[in-house]
Amino acid sequence: MSTLTAGTPGETFGARLARVVEERGRLCVGIDPHAALLASWGLPDSAAGIREFGLRVVEASAGTAGIVKPQIGFFERHGSAGFAALEEVLAAARAAELLVIADVKRGDVGSSVDAYGQAWLTPGSPFEADAMTAVAYQGVGSLDGVLAQASSHGKGVFVLAATSNPEATDVQTARVQSGPQQGRTVAAATVAELQARRTESSAAAPLDEFGVVVGATVDLGSYGLTPEDLARTPILAPGFGHQGASFVELPTLFGAALPAVIASASRSILSAGPDGLAAAVSSAAAEVDAACRA
Amino acid sequence: MSTLTAGTPGETFGARLARVVEERGRLCVGIDPHAALLASWGLPDSAAGIREFGLRVVEASAGTAGIVKPQIGFFERHGSAGFAALEEVLAAARAAELLVIADVKRGDVGSSVDAYGQAWLTPGSPFEADAMTAVAYQGVGSLDGVLAQASSHGKGVFVLAATSNPEATDVQTARVQSGPQQGRTVAAATVAELQARRTESSAAAPLDEFGVVVGATVDLGSYGLTPEDLARTPILAPGFGHQGASFVELPTLFGAALPAVIASASRSILSAGPDGLAAAVSSAAAEVDAACRA
Repeated sequence: MSTLTAGTPGETFGARLARVVEERGRLCVGIDPHAALLASWGLPDSAAGIREFGLRVVEASAGTAGIVKPQIGFFERHGSAGFAALEEVLAAARAAELLVIADVKRGDVGSSVDAYGQAWLTPGSPFEADAMTAVAYQGVGSLDGVLAQASSHGKGVFVLAATSNPEATDVQTARVQSGPQQGRTVAAATVAELQARRTESSAAAPLDEFGVVVGATVDLGSYGLTPEDLARTPILAPGFGHQGASFVELPTLFGAALPAVIASASRSILSAGPDGLAAAVSSAAAEVDAACRA
Repeated sequence: MSTLTAGTPGETFGARLARVVEERGRLCVGIDPHAALLASWGLPDSAAGIREFGLRVVEASAGTAGIVKPQIGFFERHGSAGFAALEEVLAAARAAELLVIADVKRGDVGSSVDAYGQAWLTPGSPFEADAMTAVAYQGVGSLDGVLAQASSHGKGVFVLAATSNPEATDVQTARVQSGPQQGRTVAAATVAELQARRTESSAAAPLDEFGVVVGATVDLGSYGLTPEDLARTPILAPGFGHQGASFVELPTLFGAALPAVIASASRSILSAGPDGLAAAVSSAAAEVDAACRA
């Protein structure tokens, strides 16, 4: 096991994340082997193609970026063979000292949601990652089984809060009608419920172990959120590059929450193709770094 | 391909579902190979164990029930080997003329959500099912790619609307603040957005192609929904048996929406063990049938 990303026994995900960000920066490289990208890379749209794609992204990111985020849907398209390719990519990423966020957006209740935590967050599982994305349409409390597994294994969970797609407004800005979160938007209630679950060991680390997904171009105010609300909650922020935000805007977009941000980019880096990939990762990492020091 | 569940070219999922319900009833048997059930069945907690479990449920359901619902999280726990087992179970279910609802609760945007549709709803895909469950925390519009694929392949999608777990209230009863769904609960807005996407060919069938997940014990009124709202929207209703609702209550619970209900039961049937399974499916199917004729 690597020392940079594997951490020490008892170390929380928030502590590991803070260490990785300190040493490698806050760029997260998406591993999104969709059909059009595979074609432009000259790779077949098959399990072998996505395996090769994933391994090349890992290779190009190792030592330069700190974090990768495979989008699991693109592996799922190829059935169990696609998932076998994923296992190889996950293992390679961990061996390369990259922190891996499995972008699976899982959610359910009871033993079903526990099963997802077992799949993605259990040491030794074929799909072991460092963190997973999750969705709380059934309430943050429905994810308690996954959150508990994350805590006990030093893993992280990023729950969808405020995403930047326009169709999301109805749900995410709807107002909670009763209970402790009454009057908050669904997005803000999700953040509050998640923060209320912070463990004691997590509170002692620079960042929490439970994070949120917030689109880079989201206007936090329209969800009743402020950057201060998120200052120690890890924020997985997709939307850089082709989706509209540029790295130079990082301080403006996130303000006080910047230390908690993971800036995720996929297509803008991956479209460089296999030969330009290492340079694209390096250039994106430098841009993020420069923006955050500015 | 079977004739009962495969349907005819151009036939919508709603038309197929109505035909299956007419011939086999509205019971849906869950395929939930979780660790405790595997142990009680004398099966190993491994890919081989879940394969055997799944094939036995298919065998016991064939000719008696019309619909099965594998909970994919329990396969995912075992990595790519678990997914290879799932492929065999899905193929066996389709060969046995069972309508298969893949309980995956997927949701995302853009090419990522399209990938999920390709995985679960595309004819010839290793994971081909007849329908999948989905989640719309990013808005029903974020699922448009999946809905379009479903329509073009005669497949179905069941979107989480009102679930029965207590932690879900905050999100699902929150009120939409603006736009065409203003004032509706998130659950009711989800239903309305989904119904607005009904295709012309779907409107001609007895049931819609896009359905919802509504817990059996849910009080529809508290979500601003009535049974009449759902009378032609397929309702996947988990929560029968061990989760609190009994089949005899079906007409009381759903009223005018009863013709659209799929009554899903898992543990109450599966706990009969491999030897009692066929009798448990048969007895549950008879109970559902009797309740719906009452």
